[in-house]
Amino acid sequence: MANPILEPEIRELLASQDYDTLRGLVESTHPETMADLLAALKPDEIWQVLSRLPSETSADIFTHLEDDLQVAVVNPLGRGELAELVTHMPADERVDLLKNIPEEKQHTLLPALARAEREDIRRLASYEEGTAGSVMTSDYATLAPEMTAREAIDRLRIAAPDKETIYYAYVVDENRKLLGYVSLRDLILARPGDRVDELMEQDTVYVEVNADQEEAARQISKFDLLALPVVDPSGALCGIITHDDAMDVLTQENTEDLEKIMAIGGTHEAADYMRTPALAHFRRRAGWVFALAILGLVSGAIVEGFEEMLTAYTILVVFMPMLVDTGGNTGSQSATLVVRALALGELTPGDTARVLFKEFKVSIMLALMLAIICFGRVWFFGPGDDMAVSLHVVAIAIAVALGIQVISATLIGAILPLGASALKLDPAVVASPALTTAVDITGLIIYFNVVRLFLPL
Amino acid sequence: MANPILEPEIRELLASQDYDTLRGLVESTHPETMADLLAALKPDEIWQVLSRLPSETSADIFTHLEDDLQVAVVNPLGRGELAELVTHMPADERVDLLKNIPEEKQHTLLPALARAEREDIRRLASYEEGTAGSVMTSDYATLAPEMTAREAIDRLRIAAPDKETIYYAYVVDENRKLLGYVSLRDLILARPGDRVDELMEQDTVYVEVNADQEEAARQISKFDLLALPVVDPSGALCGIITHDDAMDVLTQENTEDLEKIMAIGGTHEAADYMRTPALAHFRRRAGWVFALAILGLVSGAIVEGFEEMLTAYTILVVFMPMLVDTGGNTGSQSATLVVRALALGELTPGDTARVLFKEFKVSIMLALMLAIICFGRVWFFGPGDDMAVSLHVVAIAIAVALGIQVISATLIGAILPLGASALKLDPAVVASPALTTAVDITGLIIYFNVVRLFLPL
Repeated sequence: MANPILEPEIRELLASQDYDTLRGLVESTHPETMADLLAALKPDEIWQVLSRLPSETSADIFTHLEDDLQVAVVNPLGRGELAELVTHMPADERVDLLKNIPEEKQHTLLPALARAEREDIRRLASYEEGTAGSVMTSDYATLAPEMTAREAIDRLRIAAPDKETIYYAYVVDENRKLLGYVSLRDLILARPGDRVDELMEQDTVYVEVNADQEEAARQISKFDLLALPVVDPSGALCGIITHDDAMDVLTQENTEDLEKIMAIGGTHEAADYMRTPALAHFRRRAGWVFALAILGLVSGAIVEGFEEMLTAYTILVVFMPMLVDTGGNTGSQSATLVVRALALGELTPGDTARVLFKEFKVSIMLALMLAIICFGRVWFFGPGDDMAVSLHVVAIAIAVALGIQVISATLIGAILPLGASALKLDPAVVASPALTTAVDITGLIIYFNVVRLFLPL
Repeated sequence: MANPILEPEIRELLASQDYDTLRGLVESTHPETMADLLAALKPDEIWQVLSRLPSETSADIFTHLEDDLQVAVVNPLGRGELAELVTHMPADERVDLLKNIPEEKQHTLLPALARAEREDIRRLASYEEGTAGSVMTSDYATLAPEMTAREAIDRLRIAAPDKETIYYAYVVDENRKLLGYVSLRDLILARPGDRVDELMEQDTVYVEVNADQEEAARQISKFDLLALPVVDPSGALCGIITHDDAMDVLTQENTEDLEKIMAIGGTHEAADYMRTPALAHFRRRAGWVFALAILGLVSGAIVEGFEEMLTAYTILVVFMPMLVDTGGNTGSQSATLVVRALALGELTPGDTARVLFKEFKVSIMLALMLAIICFGRVWFFGPGDDMAVSLHVVAIAIAVALGIQVISATLIGAILPLGASALKLDPAVVASPALTTAVDITGLIIYFNVVRLFLPL
């Protein structure tokens, strides 16, 4: 991609008030690229540029700025300027901006907008974060079933400049009930006199307005859609979710899942790593670190309780970290696979028995591999004959304990996320490191109790 | 979404040879939904259904089947039937199928195809897995710059039935060099006599054919594109990547990153959790489990080396698991945030100094919090006065060691992925549990050496 305009160039054009050249350069640059460039300027300079551009171009570039930069740019604006900008933004982006600016500014802005836009904003803003309704837009075209292909194209032509996507048009009856959809492709390929209700696809994929935004994004991905219609409980069309917003939802959900798995709290906001202050990072991490540290003390208490055994058989100390770590590692693996399969819809809690059976088979293989290594390590490099029992008994004791730990940790790793999912909790939070700390504790209990069966005190 | 046809119904229609009803039902069902339904049948039954449908519908549904089911369905087919099916598949899906079927079958199939298709398959199959070339398709429309809007629409109308997307058309010169693109929207809104080179966007976002598929997918997401053109090193257009394939790439890359972070090896194939055999699961997990178990023995040897201290101060045993776990948890957190920020392009290795400074600040806060808890735990619930030094010295010693462990683990967690990225390695593999095991070892060394400074032996 060419990079036709640079930041110093913009500053120069502003200084020399050469707005015609500026407009020309902006016109030939992608709005997203333009937004990236403007992000290097100060908020008032950004507005200096945007205010010299046609309203549509200006709103288009503004829409691509990061959320907090958008707020900084609009903060000093008067009601008229702000209303002009907001009017030209896509409906869903407009709502997001309004949610981010101070409340008193919202109240002065709303009366400056046309009534239809005001109501549209109120309606879109009313859906809870994380629902399909919260990411949908009201920029879409509807058609009546009795229209012809020619009439439909004419209608799209007129409606189009204000619509985020004109490639799908939704066919609704007089109560806005969704009947089907036609693609612009089908309209172009049809004979001009063909009726819309003959051309339309009836088996329309849609979501309910209160459905999870991730479910909506997965539908778009599964059915390769450009946009997914959103309906209210009565089946009436109330918005659409576009493919690009679905991609953003999936990226955000993936980040959140990964962070939850790694014991980082809170929701992932749009702000990126560097722009999040250290204190905010601390707040998101401290909770889990604190809780897990307390649990770690439980492990310590268990070890302390078996001190006599550790003194009698010092070789037990050598294998203790390995046993504990290996349980954490194998448990994390099974938990990760199950969490991801649940997120992608490959598994449901109903599959629990089949998952456990599969993990049992895998863990038997892992356990055998590790038990053999462990036995060999004790047998060949074990300590001298300062112990009360012969070395091969110690080797067998440790190998058996390790095997049981691997099998139990693997199964715990699989069952915790499935259980969480069955209880409608988020499976990601029970994966590692919470899981690691839990199997530390079960592992130490298994270790000392199994070894005690074999070794006399 | 309605569910107009069910599996037993399909079986019944096949048994009664009522193919007209079958065709009617299939026509009103989304191909993806149809593929989901057919997946419950046996491969030969699936072909019985598909062979009774029009070629386009049949190929469309077939394309939505899982890879291994596709192979099972085509396996018994004759050359003619297979060629007919393959001819109607989208170019990129066709290549994927061919890569999956046995080589001798490929060799018998290729001569049965038209020459243009044969060459197209050879060309698309030649790109390495993971590159933009490997996920692109050759189903796209091109326009000459001197065409009018009317001519362009006519051309799209003719080309369309074979094109995966007609919503963007690419403008190329006589050497196929990419000049820009026009959207169908722009063509519909234009006056019929407007020239394509006046309507087209010149600042076209594109990728090189050897670029990483993830980079291509991120561009599609960033610029909200329906399709991204792929060019060869000379700038000639050789394919496009569509938005739905980009979404699949992102989902696959996210799964792979998560699996790598959790020490699961290999690449993530299309096969899902349940359909992967236990032995294949074992193979992907055994390597890391084995390597980390060996490292775990190193931790054990360190503990063994400080046995004298543990015997003199039994309270050290109580805090050992907590100190080790907390290092792993804080290190995993910083590693996860850095890995994700690198994957999303928010950070580069050039930011190392700034990242370390931020993580240093966060870790100081975490260290202070934990050191205070730890000091309190020792002070209020510590053991009696059976030790050689007073309790507050022990409390300070353990709190200082814990603080140093948290700070060092957090910084190691941040620097390892940045270092891997600078060395062009995948940052994800150095995150937890590999990291956890590494900071176990550094943690134990820090613990015993710090404590030794405070406590006499």
